[in-house]
This record gives sequence, C-alpha cells and structure tokens, in this order.
Amino acid sequence: MGRITVRRPVLRLSTDGVRGRRPDTLAVEEPLEIRVAGRPLTITMRTPGDDFDLVAGFLAAEGIITGAADLLAMRYCADTTEQNTLDVALAEGVEPPGELMTRAFTTTSACGVCGKASIEALRVGRPYDIAADGLRLTPATLAALPDRLREAQRVFDRTGGLHAAGLFDGNGELLVLREDVGRHNAVDKVVGWALGKGLLPLSGRILMVSGRASFELTQKAMQAGIPLLAAVSAPSSLAVELAEDAGMTLVGFLRGQTMNVYTGAHRIDVAP
Amino acid sequence: MGRITVRRPVLRLSTDGVRGRRPDTLAVEEPLEIRVAGRPLTITMRTPGDDFDLVAGFLAAEGIITGAADLLAMRYCADTTEQNTLDVALAEGVEPPGELMTRAFTTTSACGVCGKASIEALRVGRPYDIAADGLRLTPATLAALPDRLREAQRVFDRTGGLHAAGLFDGNGELLVLREDVGRHNAVDKVVGWALGKGLLPLSGRILMVSGRASFELTQKAMQAGIPLLAAVSAPSSLAVELAEDAGMTLVGFLRGQTMNVYTGAHRIDVAP
Repeated sequence: MGRITVRRPVLRLSTDGVRGRRPDTLAVEEPLEIRVAGRPLTITMRTPGDDFDLVAGFLAAEGIITGAADLLAMRYCADTTEQNTLDVALAEGVEPPGELMTRAFTTTSACGVCGKASIEALRVGRPYDIAADGLRLTPATLAALPDRLREAQRVFDRTGGLHAAGLFDGNGELLVLREDVGRHNAVDKVVGWALGKGLLPLSGRILMVSGRASFELTQKAMQAGIPLLAAVSAPSSLAVELAEDAGMTLVGFLRGQTMNVYTGAHRIDVAP
Repeated sequence: MGRITVRRPVLRLSTDGVRGRRPDTLAVEEPLEIRVAGRPLTITMRTPGDDFDLVAGFLAAEGIITGAADLLAMRYCADTTEQNTLDVALAEGVEPPGELMTRAFTTTSACGVCGKASIEALRVGRPYDIAADGLRLTPATLAALPDRLREAQRVFDRTGGLHAAGLFDGNGELLVLREDVGRHNAVDKVVGWALGKGLLPLSGRILMVSGRASFELTQKAMQAGIPLLAAVSAPSSLAVELAEDAGMTLVGFLRGQTMNVYTGAHRIDVAP
C-alpha cells in the first residue's frame, strides 16, 4: 500500500511577514492506470491505498461488474517499484468494458441524437430497484452522520486535503470510511469494499459524502443500490434529477441539526 | 447560453421536525460533449455558460491548441434545442487530438513503462517557460484575493454549489471570474477566455481557485503560462511536485491574513 500523506517543507507567511518554515503534511495524489486484460481503460488521480477496492468500485459504477464473482483477479504490474498500474482479469462471460465505455459516444456519433441523448447514454445500467427500498430513519439519525464521519477522518485533520465517503446502516452506525484526493475515488473505494464482501446491493444503507453531491456521485450510489445519499454541501441540478428518477433519497446541506431533502422525503420520519 | 441555476422544491428539516417547504436554488450541471471535426473527444459535466471558453481552455490544457489562431470555428449541434454538444474545427496544420489524447495510454501499453512513466506521460506539453516569469508581489496582495473572489461570486452565494476560478494581475486586480460545478471547468473557462483575447501566455498573472490545488489544476495553470497558483485549501503532493518542477509559485490555505507557500517563494516579497 502506498503512502497516504507526505511531509513537505512549507513557508508560512502572513501579511506581517514570515511566520515560520516547517514541514507540512500533504495528501498524496498519484495516477492509477486501470487496465482490463492488459488493455488500458482509464487513468484516475487518486490517493494510494485500497486500490483494489477503488478499481472494483469503479467497474461496478460503470456497470461492468455487479459482484465479486465477476472479478477473477487483480494485480499490480510487477516490474515497477511504484504501484500505479492495476490489471484486472474479468471472470469468464463478463463483457469487457471496451464496448460499454464507448457507448456514450457511439450512440451520439450523429448530431441527430446529441443533447438529451447524451444524458440518457450516461445513465447506463441500473442493476437494482432503489425505489422499492424500505429504509426509514429520523432526522436525528441523519444529523448525527457528519460528526461521525469527521471523527473517523483522522487523515483529513492532518492534511485538509482529502474528501471522505462513509457508508452507514439505517441506525447511523458507520460501516466503512474511505478518503481520497478525488471524491469520486472515495465513493468507488467504499462501493468496492462492499462488493468484495458480497454486500451489493447496499439496500437500507446510507452513503454520506464530505462535499457536494454531483451527478457522478449520485450515479455511483445508484449503481450500488444505495437508497439514500447525504452530502454536507449542495447537490447539482442533475444529481437531483437522477435521484428523483431512480427513487433515491437525496439530502444536502446536512450540517448541525438541519438538512435539505431534495427527493425521496418519504423515507424520513418527521415528528408530527 | 444555458441556465446557470434552477429552482427546485426542497423540504427543510431539523431534528425538531419540518422547518418548511420552499423552492431552493441549485447550480445547473449538464453534460457537454466536445467533438473535434465531428469526432467525439470527451464528455464533461459542466454548468452551462461560457461553453466556447470552456472548450478552448480544455484544448489548451491538453496541449492541442496554443492560441485563438488554432481554432477555425466552434458550433453547437444545430438539430437539438439543448446546447450540450459542441463541435470544434481546428485550423489547418493543427494536429487533431486523436493521437495526443491517447498518448498517455500508448506509451504505457506494456508493463515495462508503467508507474513513473504514466506520470511523465500525463505531463505533456509545457509550451511556456514559467520559471523565468518575473512576477513579484507581497503577502498583502495575495491575502486580498479570496475576498475579491468571493465578492464577485454572486452565484455561489445563491447555491453554495459552484467552484470559482479567478484570474488576477500582479496588483491583485480581478481580470475575470468563472464558476462551474466542476473546478477544472472553471479553470478551463478562465484560460479559454484569455486565449480568445490573445492573452496567452498569462505571464505575470495569478490564478486563484476556491477549493484545493490538484495536479490537474496545476497542470492547467502551467499550460496557460501562469506563474502563480493560489488556493483556499490544501494542495496535493503531486500538485506541489509539478509546480516545483515547472518553476511555478504554489500558495495554499490562503485565508485571512495567512498562507502557506509550497514552491517558488522567491516571487513573494516578505518584509525583512
């Protein structure tokens, strides 16, 4: 496993002058090239650690795999000291990503189907029925999540440079926390961890992210069967549209004792 | 130009119960498919507006174009009401991106050159000599930037969902501000605006971003010839490595009257 943080000399200044020169702790960012059967698929800039989970979660989000049985093996390229290339062997019968990953392009290669067609093409997959998920919880359970995420984020407190994603059960108990310089990577690591444990779909679970809720994060939660996505900050318009379409509960601005519920409010028990 | 914000109904809750139901303003996120000569290149999730600048800045960051003369024309696909596909015609003699964009993969298609080779492959281009840039400024000039960026960020104050990038001159005067749900898009819009005005390389200028400084943002600043990148939050390890290698000044945690200088401190005049 690679380093998560490094120490670097830093000059601390104020408008009054030099305040000191001392080592500062930085979050490590390094490229990870993901290959399937030796064929390069993508490069993601990530914080090393939990790379196998990251790749498994990424492949699940892209609709390429739906469970651990779809993965035959994963290995780092052995002929380098740096672990920045991971090769995946898919199980027999699993469609390799080549065709899938380019679908968004090929379906829009003529101008006649661009625009809305592109959005639809981005919405591939949907292996699970989130709308039917019976999760119910109280605002108090939700309000407790950010503090639990922060408490578990020791690395964040050292660098200020890492996004966090936490998976909670319906009682607000933390199941797993992952951090990364890229928030999409943190979510991929969480989903990959669950996939490796045979926990997909993540029915009745809650995904909490430290930043904003984008379309991409909402889609990753959807592909893992998570019925509730909660974010410390704002959601985007397309995140709300996708959550509504998928029957997912989307909570934003979850801070202190308050929150905004954008979709799926029926899952939250409010005192009369 | 597309909408930058939309209004959506939202249920506001607290642990005490329902606080109200009212429309909330969300930042718009929509896909933009970028094509060159009709060939799909990439899809980015962006906030509509300044799409031409976004695409020009993206192409400059990728090393495909270096000035407005490299662009013959840009147009939206006309046969849709949604402006989510932009086709670029490059000037004669400009190498199309096909080969360039896949270089990172093709140079690492054998395991023998993965790892460090991937990082090097990501560092294509470098059209300008940033190390020689004579920008000098005081900590007070830097300390004034975040407030100026925030003051100009009216949309941010409405949605809380937009990243900002601002281009300043050496005296701390704001030249242009752009916002987006994706921070890389905000920087591309700034650089594309400058490219359209014939201002590249952006010698003696400062790029200020509202969030963290990643490798990707540092690279975009480098490709535009910007000698100083300042961020409100932390830089990543690879951002610092790249800035040092390029001779760029990298400032992080620029808040209130203090800041951390990670590289290129010689550009900052500190009182003795």
